[in-house]
Amino acid sequence: MNIVFIGSGNVAWHLAQALDKNGHKITDIYSRTIANAKKLCSKLYDAQATNSLDFTASQATLFVIAVPDNAVLEIVEKASFPANSIVVHTSGTLSMDELEDVNTKNIGVFYPLQTFSKTKQVDFKTIPICIEASDSKTEKIIEKVAFSICENVCFYDSEDRKKLHLAAVIACNFSNYMLKMSEQILKEHGLDFAILKPLIKETIEKALEIGPKNAQTGPAMRKDMQTIQTQLELLSNKPELKTIYKLISEQIMKQN
Amino acid sequence: MNIVFIGSGNVAWHLAQALDKNGHKITDIYSRTIANAKKLCSKLYDAQATNSLDFTASQATLFVIAVPDNAVLEIVEKASFPANSIVVHTSGTLSMDELEDVNTKNIGVFYPLQTFSKTKQVDFKTIPICIEASDSKTEKIIEKVAFSICENVCFYDSEDRKKLHLAAVIACNFSNYMLKMSEQILKEHGLDFAILKPLIKETIEKALEIGPKNAQTGPAMRKDMQTIQTQLELLSNKPELKTIYKLISEQIMKQN
Repeated sequence: MNIVFIGSGNVAWHLAQALDKNGHKITDIYSRTIANAKKLCSKLYDAQATNSLDFTASQATLFVIAVPDNAVLEIVEKASFPANSIVVHTSGTLSMDELEDVNTKNIGVFYPLQTFSKTKQVDFKTIPICIEASDSKTEKIIEKVAFSICENVCFYDSEDRKKLHLAAVIACNFSNYMLKMSEQILKEHGLDFAILKPLIKETIEKALEIGPKNAQTGPAMRKDMQTIQTQLELLSNKPELKTIYKLISEQIMKQN
Repeated sequence: MNIVFIGSGNVAWHLAQALDKNGHKITDIYSRTIANAKKLCSKLYDAQATNSLDFTASQATLFVIAVPDNAVLEIVEKASFPANSIVVHTSGTLSMDELEDVNTKNIGVFYPLQTFSKTKQVDFKTIPICIEASDSKTEKIIEKVAFSICENVCFYDSEDRKKLHLAAVIACNFSNYMLKMSEQILKEHGLDFAILKPLIKETIEKALEIGPKNAQTGPAMRKDMQTIQTQLELLSNKPELKTIYKLISEQIMKQN
């Protein structure tokens, strides 16, 4: 299938390459900054970089809007698509309806439930792709594209997808932030973050095996106020982190 | 070596069994609640359950105090150890000095940097064990015991170990809490936590590979206020979690 990407950020970067490698032809990459589009094109078989949103003459069937959520509406307002083409966005939080003003009635969502950074390869096979479509014909086409790169295609409506995205942000972006804080504390004292790696691996493995509710351990879980107090004191020069530590500990204690 | 455990909680549970399987003899398990001591004894080759803290007649060389931090002092006050025996605690946060009032001058710390739950087996080989001792002779003995079950023995003084423990709590206990919150949100809406597993695995793998600072993604990292606003609204019936979400997002934005 001929596919156009609007956007050249982390999601477009990985998704376009995965589709390109799996029998699809990425014809164009749009970016406001054409240099960014060109960078992604250089990773693809035969794609053109463009900074025009007039796609009316395009031969593509599928248009993937992979830009930050707050830029989607502007794309919807400015872009023109070929009649009968399909336009999808890749957002977890935006509803499908955000696309209802595009000049084609075939719209949908193509949300890969994964964290993307340009410097880290990802294996799409294991990534769930959550799809939604305006009608069953469009859904079948989007589904087929999803299955061409992954083995786990899920159907979520916009309301459920919003909750899924919230859960993903908390489970992943916030967990990563905890690791970041932890690394920062160790660094400040000349200690090496690497020593925590076996513990971090085991923590996550355990949470996924026996469930995070059963896996919760630590001073707050034991209601060990003495340790909590000592640790809060260690954070006295980091008021925001101290507040976060206190709030999370209180929640763990409350739910225990 | 003959070893006595004081405590039968998660740390004692796993540590006593690991030592028992690696050539040491666990002679006694102390617990205030003798039934708990008996449960652990049933997993060991030939240990006795006891609820007496008078060990003066014991043949053991090493006494491991593996109780919650706020119970260590009570043990120190009440227990009597044989002359020349070694007494260690397993706490990340308590300094070694907490043991200075025991009736032996050989004291130390034996802190396995891992999360323990009774229902989940752990492989001690990969676990860093952080040790500290009152003198070099005691240190050598503790070091030998540590190396008998693990390959990664580290030397931390009480101040550094405190920081290490704080970093471990944030990286692991708090990350697990994030997963717990995430699971709870999905459950409330009839959605399955399992769909997040590939994302969680990749998040942690990526953080450990390229470092959590480089791995940070998500709405806050992109300063995507629209998504943050939508997600805060989804949390309007969970004021504490909403506060945590807001604080962490602000921190991620600030540090970006």
